[in-house]
Amino acid sequence: MEKLYSQMTAEELKAEQKALEKRFNDFKSKGLKLDMSRGKPGADQLDLSSQMNDVKDYVSDGVDIRNYGILDGIPSCKKLFADLMGVDSKNVIVGPNASLTLMFDYISQCYTHGAGDTPWCRLPEVKFLCPVPGYDRHFTILEYFGIKMINIAMKEDGPDMDAIEEYIKDDSVKGMFCVPKYSNPQGITYSDAVVKRIAAMKPAAKDFRIIWDNAYCIHDLDKDSDELLNIFDVLPEYGNEDMVIEVCSTSKITFPGSGVSALIASDNNIAAIKKRLNVQTISYDKMNQHRHVEFFGDADGVRAHMKKHAEILKPKFDMVLRHLDNELSGKGIASWFNPKGGYFISLDVMEGCAKRVGELCKEAGVVLTSVGATYPYGKDDKDSNIRIAPSFPPVAELDMAAELLCICVQLACIEKLLG
Amino acid sequence: MEKLYSQMTAEELKAEQKALEKRFNDFKSKGLKLDMSRGKPGADQLDLSSQMNDVKDYVSDGVDIRNYGILDGIPSCKKLFADLMGVDSKNVIVGPNASLTLMFDYISQCYTHGAGDTPWCRLPEVKFLCPVPGYDRHFTILEYFGIKMINIAMKEDGPDMDAIEEYIKDDSVKGMFCVPKYSNPQGITYSDAVVKRIAAMKPAAKDFRIIWDNAYCIHDLDKDSDELLNIFDVLPEYGNEDMVIEVCSTSKITFPGSGVSALIASDNNIAAIKKRLNVQTISYDKMNQHRHVEFFGDADGVRAHMKKHAEILKPKFDMVLRHLDNELSGKGIASWFNPKGGYFISLDVMEGCAKRVGELCKEAGVVLTSVGATYPYGKDDKDSNIRIAPSFPPVAELDMAAELLCICVQLACIEKLLG
Repeated sequence: MEKLYSQMTAEELKAEQKALEKRFNDFKSKGLKLDMSRGKPGADQLDLSSQMNDVKDYVSDGVDIRNYGILDGIPSCKKLFADLMGVDSKNVIVGPNASLTLMFDYISQCYTHGAGDTPWCRLPEVKFLCPVPGYDRHFTILEYFGIKMINIAMKEDGPDMDAIEEYIKDDSVKGMFCVPKYSNPQGITYSDAVVKRIAAMKPAAKDFRIIWDNAYCIHDLDKDSDELLNIFDVLPEYGNEDMVIEVCSTSKITFPGSGVSALIASDNNIAAIKKRLNVQTISYDKMNQHRHVEFFGDADGVRAHMKKHAEILKPKFDMVLRHLDNELSGKGIASWFNPKGGYFISLDVMEGCAKRVGELCKEAGVVLTSVGATYPYGKDDKDSNIRIAPSFPPVAELDMAAELLCICVQLACIEKLLG
Repeated sequence: MEKLYSQMTAEELKAEQKALEKRFNDFKSKGLKLDMSRGKPGADQLDLSSQMNDVKDYVSDGVDIRNYGILDGIPSCKKLFADLMGVDSKNVIVGPNASLTLMFDYISQCYTHGAGDTPWCRLPEVKFLCPVPGYDRHFTILEYFGIKMINIAMKEDGPDMDAIEEYIKDDSVKGMFCVPKYSNPQGITYSDAVVKRIAAMKPAAKDFRIIWDNAYCIHDLDKDSDELLNIFDVLPEYGNEDMVIEVCSTSKITFPGSGVSALIASDNNIAAIKKRLNVQTISYDKMNQHRHVEFFGDADGVRAHMKKHAEILKPKFDMVLRHLDNELSGKGIASWFNPKGGYFISLDVMEGCAKRVGELCKEAGVVLTSVGATYPYGKDDKDSNIRIAPSFPPVAELDMAAELLCICVQLACIEKLLG
């Protein structure tokens, strides 16, 4: 049984520190260069899709998809996403190589042309709710458009709905970003109750929009996976179909940067988005859409493919979690979730220590996601959250990186306690 | 020697009309379905690039380009465009599958964040100069953002510079769209004198921006091609580097919709654009960039490839021009240019007749670009300009379509003259 650091004497802490410093220096002398900063698939994961490049034909549903046209995606690819996401093809727009661009463009559209109401750029203030910790690139989009971000605490079953229901009484609160399944970074999946409560919301702003970033919709690590309620099945009960814009992509299914994204929305929203899209492009890359369809065959093909990713990723997550458990549990200095999918492990260390952990890791050659990045404006007021991305390094390297991280967490906390 | 229609008696015109109507009805009875509406490459042109899909490797300059990252394009692809466009790699951003999106996004950026000055959405009025006839999709972008369009007449060597120099004294005039080589639709290439005069402009608006849409930069039909002065060689003389944003793409070199686009700009503008881009995406499709680089090898490879396109396109242009010449010349009812490149032939018919020509063509099964589309707001006040796109139909079909078009032009003009 480990002893709580808070109950240790200064002498005990110093002894602990000395042992940890030795281990830290041993690591440092190895001259490591490891990266746990971003949710990049490993090269072996990318190899899983290499046969996609064998697709040579270019006729889909009788159409030569090499040429101009077909604004919202070839029908076969719309159907693939529709089947995966449990919606009608007519509610799908197949997008560019990244759902990030779909999200940026949608917020941009709301800013310049509104969401059925006054363009947001004409309003004195626009605010968004941001469950925290969250995805830094959501926050960057909002910051770019000068949209004020309000932190919403994450609970174990999703964002704090009481807080949300209070905030949406303000009609300058125009929306919310969510990663409802295997949230980035905590790996939390919103419970059915939370999804229903979200679908039932009655925001003061008629043009309130939820960006439902379902980035990890089928990114399970194991058979024992989380199930997310399909919010589009629930929204109609409350007449709220127009409130949600869902996005997803194959970035972490096939190739990051060379995948295909999709946007799912109500008939009204699809029509409004197509209006802009028709000005912005003639079509996205239909040859790549076709390549994906031919490679997977159907939605079951995609699901089978994801099992191969899980086989590669699961041992990496297990490796990090084992280190966390071995070194940090029972000491009262850190907590984390055991996610069943997604790309991250979220580690909360003793308040005021996360930045120092990042510095120590860097000193010994391990790059973490910038500490603070999981909060709007890069400001984690408690200086506590660290996002761990275990996917990219090979297992042997990850083993070292995770051990080092644990050493750094303990060192930072001891430093803090010793004042 | 043909007789001018304007000098024919009503009786002569009626006799002519009768003969033309017979030919028209013969065509109509064939139940044709021909399309000369858009600048789509033919299937044989697309076949020229089919080997690009054989590219299998995914390492460029030592980097696995399947994964995330490299915001502004892989270095080899930046260099390819830099060499083609006669600029430094550092002034190139490799973009998405269409330069249209780059243009939309840049205007969007100016609208929401400005071009170094007040965001355009905060100004009471923003105006753009539009050489006419021009490209409908430029006009659509401007209309989408509520930017007021001012027509500038095209002369044989480029837009009317006297008019432009007058308009830019107004600081609400913020920019201009140009297709400087083989302009859409006339096929006019701006003379050196015009390019220099543009480069030397001193607009009242400090944030004046020219979108230099070099869509047909290497799209010659023949050895005897036009040469466009590289405006980036001239701009520094006048301290005007920041005034021009150039775009181009491989849409009509490899695959429309599955090509690669590029944006060329000054250091300042590249920095400003990257700032947005970094929020909008992690990278564009680097696997497609790499495919293009491997397929072409270098800029000379691209130029050699364009000769193959010319071999296919030249006979089509010649076919249309032959019909125009045979049927319309010497009658005083139509004029046109003989372009040395690009994708279009621009036909100006007797005032007040273009729409009627479009109707007659449609009646007999030939679709033309919507008459009026070559002008802002779709309004050709003279109802005179028709854009002919000869690239897509096979030669045999084009033969019929062009003949029919000539018949319709004559019929419409006779109708008009007979009142």
